[in-house]
Amino acid sequence: MNDRFLRACRRQPTDCTPIWLMRQAGRYMPEYRAVRERYGFLEMVKRPEVAAAITMQPINAFALDAAIIFADILPPLEGMGIDLTFEQGEGPVIHNPLRTPADVAALRQPDPHETAAFTLEAIRLVRRELAGRVPLIGFSGAPFTLASYAIEGGGSRDYRRTKQFMYSQPEAWHLLMQKLTTLVIDYLLAQVEAGAQAVQVFDSWAGALAPFDYTIYVLPYVQQCATRLRETGVPTIYFGTDMNGLLPLLRQIDVDVLGVDWRIYLDDAWAQLGPGFAVQGNLDPTTLFAPWPELEQRATDILNRAGGREGHIFNLGHGIQTETPVENVRRLIEYVHEASQI
Amino acid sequence: MNDRFLRACRRQPTDCTPIWLMRQAGRYMPEYRAVRERYGFLEMVKRPEVAAAITMQPINAFALDAAIIFADILPPLEGMGIDLTFEQGEGPVIHNPLRTPADVAALRQPDPHETAAFTLEAIRLVRRELAGRVPLIGFSGAPFTLASYAIEGGGSRDYRRTKQFMYSQPEAWHLLMQKLTTLVIDYLLAQVEAGAQAVQVFDSWAGALAPFDYTIYVLPYVQQCATRLRETGVPTIYFGTDMNGLLPLLRQIDVDVLGVDWRIYLDDAWAQLGPGFAVQGNLDPTTLFAPWPELEQRATDILNRAGGREGHIFNLGHGIQTETPVENVRRLIEYVHEASQI
Repeated sequence: MNDRFLRACRRQPTDCTPIWLMRQAGRYMPEYRAVRERYGFLEMVKRPEVAAAITMQPINAFALDAAIIFADILPPLEGMGIDLTFEQGEGPVIHNPLRTPADVAALRQPDPHETAAFTLEAIRLVRRELAGRVPLIGFSGAPFTLASYAIEGGGSRDYRRTKQFMYSQPEAWHLLMQKLTTLVIDYLLAQVEAGAQAVQVFDSWAGALAPFDYTIYVLPYVQQCATRLRETGVPTIYFGTDMNGLLPLLRQIDVDVLGVDWRIYLDDAWAQLGPGFAVQGNLDPTTLFAPWPELEQRATDILNRAGGREGHIFNLGHGIQTETPVENVRRLIEYVHEASQI
Repeated sequence: MNDRFLRACRRQPTDCTPIWLMRQAGRYMPEYRAVRERYGFLEMVKRPEVAAAITMQPINAFALDAAIIFADILPPLEGMGIDLTFEQGEGPVIHNPLRTPADVAALRQPDPHETAAFTLEAIRLVRRELAGRVPLIGFSGAPFTLASYAIEGGGSRDYRRTKQFMYSQPEAWHLLMQKLTTLVIDYLLAQVEAGAQAVQVFDSWAGALAPFDYTIYVLPYVQQCATRLRETGVPTIYFGTDMNGLLPLLRQIDVDVLGVDWRIYLDDAWAQLGPGFAVQGNLDPTTLFAPWPELEQRATDILNRAGGREGHIFNLGHGIQTETPVENVRRLIEYVHEASQI
């Protein structure tokens, strides 16, 4: 088995730098668009055989070092009583957003074995299909990011409702975060049980917070997830964007790998985290639209900044974008392997 | 004259911490909304007596330590040949966005004395009206932020067109940035000549860039602006959001003050910049929606992190938001003065 990715998560030596790409199974691939024409987005997530096939598309197309299960962070909320749809071109819409402490109290604590059975089944299908070629990553939204979706009801510019909820209803906030933390832990443990060999926790929106607020309202819950997951022995990755000012706080978290966005030099971020972490990142996804020499130069810079140290997983600093040229994706993956060979 | 703000810009001792708020003349004030009902947005900017009156509104309402001229970063582009309107609810729209090197070559190099005469006249009116009560800040968009507006044609999620332009047409990019740098310098020198006692350069969108790209495509031009403005003896403030990963680069820039967003502890940012800078910031603007005890606690934390050092200007970490409760604005300003008294 190609275990470069898992070895790098554990800061063990590898023959070359492993690479995978956030959202690697996505719209930029013609194979994906072909499937997407036949199904709605949530339908693809909820049909295990479709989710499994999509998960495999980039693995079959490129020399990636890890697969990540095709799923979405929001469906696990449905089991709590949250009413979710994906509108054409608008992204997710939550029709009963949380507005009061009573709304929080009414949330159920679901068993992901039942309510997210489709993703667990997809994990089992992919593991069988992969037959050890590369490891499979499971994932979940982080408690804060799930909470802000549930409160805002969709995307947001300034997360005003979420922050007002935190500030004005701290008890209900902490109850909500505890329920979500339990959900995230149960969901990820079930994924590990189903065959996920590493898990990534996406805190896509936590970068909207001041460190003062992150410390009080978010960090203890991320830490709770990390501590529980560490017991499984499966590597955990924590990722968010716009969090470079929070790095001195993030080093308190018991995760194996920190995902770094593209807005900081990889070595600056790593220095702030300290040698106890592996780091994942951090090419600007928009760079994939550049002519190859420009792209190569930036990939080289990241490899140089990693400096051949154990514990670097090459990735983008955020998800790959729609319309990204497939040829650049292929070349980047090959280049990272070649250029980092010992 | 209340010169707390100017003294803090120069890292001189003050009797208490000066405070002003980005976008302090804005929609959250009923006085502003009353004027806005009668004029279009660009009309308010372009009528010097209206712009002057709006500039004075927060000065008359609150104990602020500086005024900032009411203007917008985009109208100076019109003199270059860019066709700009503000659409109801949509913000600025540029109808002839830059797409080719020929578009860049065709841009005129305007004389802001002519093309931005309205803002210069507003500055003169405000200085007369202020009669030395507090200093007046002038401002401009930074070259990169102006360039990305001109290329994208409006707001953007990922600045893909801007980055593609940089990567694919580097010569045209550098020509564009040089033209914009000349514009920014000429515009700010004219503002100083008209009476601006400090200037702020807003690089609102530079936080979209990786440090590798910021270094090549942006930093030399910000540095050019800073170096030229330093000759005037008037303090210069450089501000952007999402730039906390760039702090080790920003310390190379010859500005007096660095504006810090709310996504980092003020003392962490200051430590990365070093003692050669004054810092401005950095309360999360959404905190103004919190109950007073929560707001007070966060303002106190920022003052404690500044630790009474010379060179702290209290401000938000981004512009004040529409619908912000006026009463919290008033209390915050009073509290910062009281709590920071020596």
